[in-house]
Amino acid sequence: MDGLWAAYAAATKDARTQSADSLIRYVRPLIGTAKMGHTFPGATVPFGAVQLSPDTDTIPYAVDGRYNPDVYTYCAGYQYDDPTIVGFSHTHFSGTGHSDLGDFLIMPTAGALQLNPGTAGDPQTGFRSAYSHDNETAGANYYRVKLDDHQITAELTTAMRTGFHRYTFPAEEEAHIILDLMHGIYDYGDKTVWTVARVLNDSTVVGYRQTNGWARTRTVYFAMSFSKPFKSYGSRNFEATPVYRGFWRKFDQNDNFPDIAGKKLRMHFDFDVEADEQIQVKFSLSPVSMTNAVANMEAEIPHWDFDRAKREGQGLWEKELRRIEATLPTEADYVNFYTAMYHAALMPTVYMDVNGQYKGLDYEVHTADGFTNYTSLSLWDTFRAFHPYLNIVNPSRNADIVASMMAHYEQSVLNMLPIWSHYANDNWCMSGYHSVSVVADAIIKGVYQGDPEAALDACVATANQRRYEGIGEYIDKGYIADETNGTSVSNTLEYAYDDWCIAQLAKHLGRHDVYDTFIRRSENWRNLYDASIGFMRPRHADGTFRKAFDVLETHGQGFIEGNTWNYSLYVPHNPAGLMEVMGGKGRLSRYLDSLFTMHLPDKFFAHTEDITREGIIGNYVHGNEPAHHVAYLYNITGEASKTQERVRMILENQYHNGPDGLGGNDDCGQMSAWYLFSSLGFYPVSPGSDVYWLGSPLVESATINLENGKTFTVEAINQSDKNVYVEQVTLNGKPLAGYQLTHSDIVNGGQLVFTMADKPNKKR
Amino acid sequence: MDGLWAAYAAATKDARTQSADSLIRYVRPLIGTAKMGHTFPGATVPFGAVQLSPDTDTIPYAVDGRYNPDVYTYCAGYQYDDPTIVGFSHTHFSGTGHSDLGDFLIMPTAGALQLNPGTAGDPQTGFRSAYSHDNETAGANYYRVKLDDHQITAELTTAMRTGFHRYTFPAEEEAHIILDLMHGIYDYGDKTVWTVARVLNDSTVVGYRQTNGWARTRTVYFAMSFSKPFKSYGSRNFEATPVYRGFWRKFDQNDNFPDIAGKKLRMHFDFDVEADEQIQVKFSLSPVSMTNAVANMEAEIPHWDFDRAKREGQGLWEKELRRIEATLPTEADYVNFYTAMYHAALMPTVYMDVNGQYKGLDYEVHTADGFTNYTSLSLWDTFRAFHPYLNIVNPSRNADIVASMMAHYEQSVLNMLPIWSHYANDNWCMSGYHSVSVVADAIIKGVYQGDPEAALDACVATANQRRYEGIGEYIDKGYIADETNGTSVSNTLEYAYDDWCIAQLAKHLGRHDVYDTFIRRSENWRNLYDASIGFMRPRHADGTFRKAFDVLETHGQGFIEGNTWNYSLYVPHNPAGLMEVMGGKGRLSRYLDSLFTMHLPDKFFAHTEDITREGIIGNYVHGNEPAHHVAYLYNITGEASKTQERVRMILENQYHNGPDGLGGNDDCGQMSAWYLFSSLGFYPVSPGSDVYWLGSPLVESATINLENGKTFTVEAINQSDKNVYVEQVTLNGKPLAGYQLTHSDIVNGGQLVFTMADKPNKKR
Repeated sequence: MDGLWAAYAAATKDARTQSADSLIRYVRPLIGTAKMGHTFPGATVPFGAVQLSPDTDTIPYAVDGRYNPDVYTYCAGYQYDDPTIVGFSHTHFSGTGHSDLGDFLIMPTAGALQLNPGTAGDPQTGFRSAYSHDNETAGANYYRVKLDDHQITAELTTAMRTGFHRYTFPAEEEAHIILDLMHGIYDYGDKTVWTVARVLNDSTVVGYRQTNGWARTRTVYFAMSFSKPFKSYGSRNFEATPVYRGFWRKFDQNDNFPDIAGKKLRMHFDFDVEADEQIQVKFSLSPVSMTNAVANMEAEIPHWDFDRAKREGQGLWEKELRRIEATLPTEADYVNFYTAMYHAALMPTVYMDVNGQYKGLDYEVHTADGFTNYTSLSLWDTFRAFHPYLNIVNPSRNADIVASMMAHYEQSVLNMLPIWSHYANDNWCMSGYHSVSVVADAIIKGVYQGDPEAALDACVATANQRRYEGIGEYIDKGYIADETNGTSVSNTLEYAYDDWCIAQLAKHLGRHDVYDTFIRRSENWRNLYDASIGFMRPRHADGTFRKAFDVLETHGQGFIEGNTWNYSLYVPHNPAGLMEVMGGKGRLSRYLDSLFTMHLPDKFFAHTEDITREGIIGNYVHGNEPAHHVAYLYNITGEASKTQERVRMILENQYHNGPDGLGGNDDCGQMSAWYLFSSLGFYPVSPGSDVYWLGSPLVESATINLENGKTFTVEAINQSDKNVYVEQVTLNGKPLAGYQLTHSDIVNGGQLVFTMADKPNKKR
Repeated sequence: MDGLWAAYAAATKDARTQSADSLIRYVRPLIGTAKMGHTFPGATVPFGAVQLSPDTDTIPYAVDGRYNPDVYTYCAGYQYDDPTIVGFSHTHFSGTGHSDLGDFLIMPTAGALQLNPGTAGDPQTGFRSAYSHDNETAGANYYRVKLDDHQITAELTTAMRTGFHRYTFPAEEEAHIILDLMHGIYDYGDKTVWTVARVLNDSTVVGYRQTNGWARTRTVYFAMSFSKPFKSYGSRNFEATPVYRGFWRKFDQNDNFPDIAGKKLRMHFDFDVEADEQIQVKFSLSPVSMTNAVANMEAEIPHWDFDRAKREGQGLWEKELRRIEATLPTEADYVNFYTAMYHAALMPTVYMDVNGQYKGLDYEVHTADGFTNYTSLSLWDTFRAFHPYLNIVNPSRNADIVASMMAHYEQSVLNMLPIWSHYANDNWCMSGYHSVSVVADAIIKGVYQGDPEAALDACVATANQRRYEGIGEYIDKGYIADETNGTSVSNTLEYAYDDWCIAQLAKHLGRHDVYDTFIRRSENWRNLYDASIGFMRPRHADGTFRKAFDVLETHGQGFIEGNTWNYSLYVPHNPAGLMEVMGGKGRLSRYLDSLFTMHLPDKFFAHTEDITREGIIGNYVHGNEPAHHVAYLYNITGEASKTQERVRMILENQYHNGPDGLGGNDDCGQMSAWYLFSSLGFYPVSPGSDVYWLGSPLVESATINLENGKTFTVEAINQSDKNVYVEQVTLNGKPLAGYQLTHSDIVNGGQLVFTMADKPNKKR
């Protein structure tokens, strides 16, 4: 923890005593902004369509034609250790391992107009500015920073689809507000396809931006409104190649020309300001049209009261956080807990205008009928704990997310549920078809109220899309051959789990034929287990296992972002079956012990996205998702106490209050959802079942205020950082045998009481 | 006339005797397809949104970074002398002097798949094919050609928004239908911005194409339907730079992948065909969406009966041509006359779906309320005779065109009526703001039924857009200074005429303040007349005339596409005033005599678009528009007989039956409209007035079937190719004094009878 951060922490040190009044004071959006957390520090509302946040740099993928690892560093546009801020853009993913968004960067400047961003090393060469964390505040729906080069104080807040900027200028001077339409958080290549801006009058601009990046065909429309009319404005087109513009000789296009379009545009709006004058900017987004963007702004913030907008958004956050009222051992734990709740309420994001319109995967404008449409579903990450978390804490929202997935399916010419829903695109990122897990879990737990038969059909269609990443071969052979693709083992394991989810849903609906097919498919993990070495292993089409194989290496071994030590445990739906083929309780126990205690040299994961030293305990990779259920597996080796130890160790080890407080990408709330479940003392090892496995709670107590009006309370008697073992558990006053809790136990309301101890209870 | 053309002409030589049954048999779309006519030979309906026509080549603007003059040659995609056809694309301008469109090229091929077009010199290197005019037929809404390389007979017809292809394959073989999404008729640079295609099932494809060319942001959506399911399909992306595509490892994108997008895509659809099998393709366009394109197809051609579609479209043409029933001296005259009517009914084009939706200049989707929306308004050309022609022959259509211009104005962030309305863009091509002429003419003649006050306001706003091409300076100084732009004189002259139109409209509406302002502005032409040399001349800001000045040169002299010899006569609204400053009747007469008889060496117009040797008589440039009224000016020098001589000479000299039958770009019907007016014996020298000036009719007789149910008949007694002089004129049996006819004389119905003679009547 550096000095600045300590100062920030100190400023909220009295928070606990006032927690009855405010939970948002525990929210520190800066957690995860250093190193690989990939969170953003800016302002947003829960699941907000606008994420208005500073970008400290944006790095193109290709530098001299080579891969630039820094592109990964800047997934959220902000790195805590950077010395300068380029400006404030309106869209950011939270915790992804891939870069995109960063739409519509705004930067206020003082003095002569500069239309290039300049460099971090020499910010005065451009409009970017040095800043200090001393002068930076980040909270729920509020971000403030002083831009040292311009001496301007920038404040940001938002409503659902509208960013709200307040800039305070220190002196009477010439001022400019830059709108950078070519700015973006990059992934690969030159991704801006087209931008348009129309200056409607002396204080209103509308336009759009189309990109071809992680999402192939992504378009965002905007409306921008100034609290003070600009005295003049202009734009520059930075395209290297001159292109025909018949109107160049007709109009002076650079200055005060209201109708611009091109690939590489930056605009400026010019003002004379008095000392301490404030200029405010509202900036709304729409997936559909400029007209809708204007309507969104008028509906959401029909005034110029920045503090009111901030207050209203913070009220939404307070309401969101109050879904769980927890008592925690330390101040730091409060910050971790409520920041985790914050991070688990950023994505997916609302993708729909106030009138209900949104752009579909089929490039058409749709109106959401009876649901709120969401996008940015990073399902490989979030099916594990994030959606199960919503199913308890925020089920109506998860129901809408499933409805959004069904709409995506209906619009898909591939007849697939989303792999990674990305602003009316699928970027098809990571392996598996984990939508089916989310759909099954939401239906089995009674959350999704749509047509379950149609949902099952969508799951089956997705799982039978033979063209997708080896599915055809998987269906035919029971596994994907090593020669088919480089991730044949993780694909096979994840498909098998997903198939189990489909089987569970089919069983739930009485569709026995579907159940039979998919329960059979769900055992396909067995086809890649090599008993001779005791690990999952790539297998050739001819049935033989690949000879050259390294059980520690994460690259080129048939897995995506993981080695076989972690991935061999990925049979969450049949851990008993796995334990059996592995040789029984003792063998699995020793396997787990080794995993958590062995040393994994850097060379085995260097250059693997989302696996870093910080996210590793032994060879157990918590910073990435595939092993998130693993600590809970000791429950079936007869060593629940080891689950309790490991879970508390991970909670302690992997989650801190600092900007580097996350051991890996937050991955759209999945890392945080793991924290929240585990802090409450249970975890959904296999979504698609209604069962949670017990761990060791971190909370002293917690009340989940369920949407159905009931409450479910967790209490940990004798809680302390030493008392990590569970002496006994009662549910509604009766001893709870075994290690499982059901979803109905929770949503029917009740009280789960752990009695903690400093030694394992060998009898449990 | 080459041999092939003669054969084609012979095939219709009996047309005259059957003219009562069919006028479309006189239509020869191949007229103007050689050299610089820039017409297209393919199939379309009157003002149709689809122009389905063969492209013989498309030439990029830049060849080794230099201007390639051939880009101008290929404005319509087809050049009669070319040996090969690349394929059939769905959008074509008729007679423009600038290249664009050529959207969605389809080509049927036999044998192995080829996805490159190949070259004209070696067509077998690609999917293009050699063809012969022997095997080519082009008529109203029907085009047929045999593709020699593939031995496939291709037939094309259309409905309003739908192209219909019929391909007959000669033998049992492997066949492919290529859909080239990167094909386009080029202007400058690499203009395809983005394309999308979705294969909905085994016989339906939808998608869109966005380009950045002559129109800056132009998007066309499509739906494509095959009469026979394809057995397989695929696509290739020809982008040179590899771009991130997350899904490349997920899907085989090349083959049978239904969800493609990118900048440079070609698709293929694969079939096995029997001998003589026909495969048909329907291809609909929409300015709005893929869904609308599908709906357009279903509404327009809900069947697979090619001959029915052809017949229905030809019925529309027959109806369109029958608006004038003419008797003409020769077979060749019939062909010229009805092909001129055909060419004067191709543009503008309907820009609206069957449900009334269209894309606006504001990038929003609008629904046309009470009118049909049109685009592709080349107003610098068409205000002169084409729109006045519609005001007589097709007034309801011109009313809708004016309504479309008003919608454009309402959507314009520049508050301007269109300069060149181009698929929801303005390409701002050529000088002046001639919308105001069209608006004024349509209101003064009682054609436009919308709000005339709003229309006047739009005209005034347009004429007061100070930022546009010198208007501010023009308002302030009364002329545009030579140093302001390279076309200061033509701009000033054209603005003055346009201002006169606004004044006439204001007078018509009793808006005296507007009248006073604009009638004053309309005399600004006087500011650029240099009495010392007797010509219009560029003038500096300090009031002095430019010293270095060449009265013959068309380049760099202050004019656009013309020299001062032609442009100095451009005061159509006050020819008497011009004659006065020029020195009176004798001086103007001698000026005109010189213009028509002097020799203009090639060097003075080489490399000037749309001025070619074929289009020149003396120094009079008929192939381009600025002098189109000039032949009629003898009427005010007291030498009406010279007008009669010149007009008949131009009709004889500039319009032929051959593919090279037009002396210049047809310019969206303006050249043809000149022909039609002049053939009927009168011409709108100054649109915005209700007066036509008399010339010498070419028809023996002609009946205009007016929309109001009345008829207006022209008769030429003693008509012959020698009897070009008008001995006397009667209107409804009474002698017509002077040289003018009014619009009400026509639309009230009646009979205009010329008595022709082989000598001038000196008394008239």
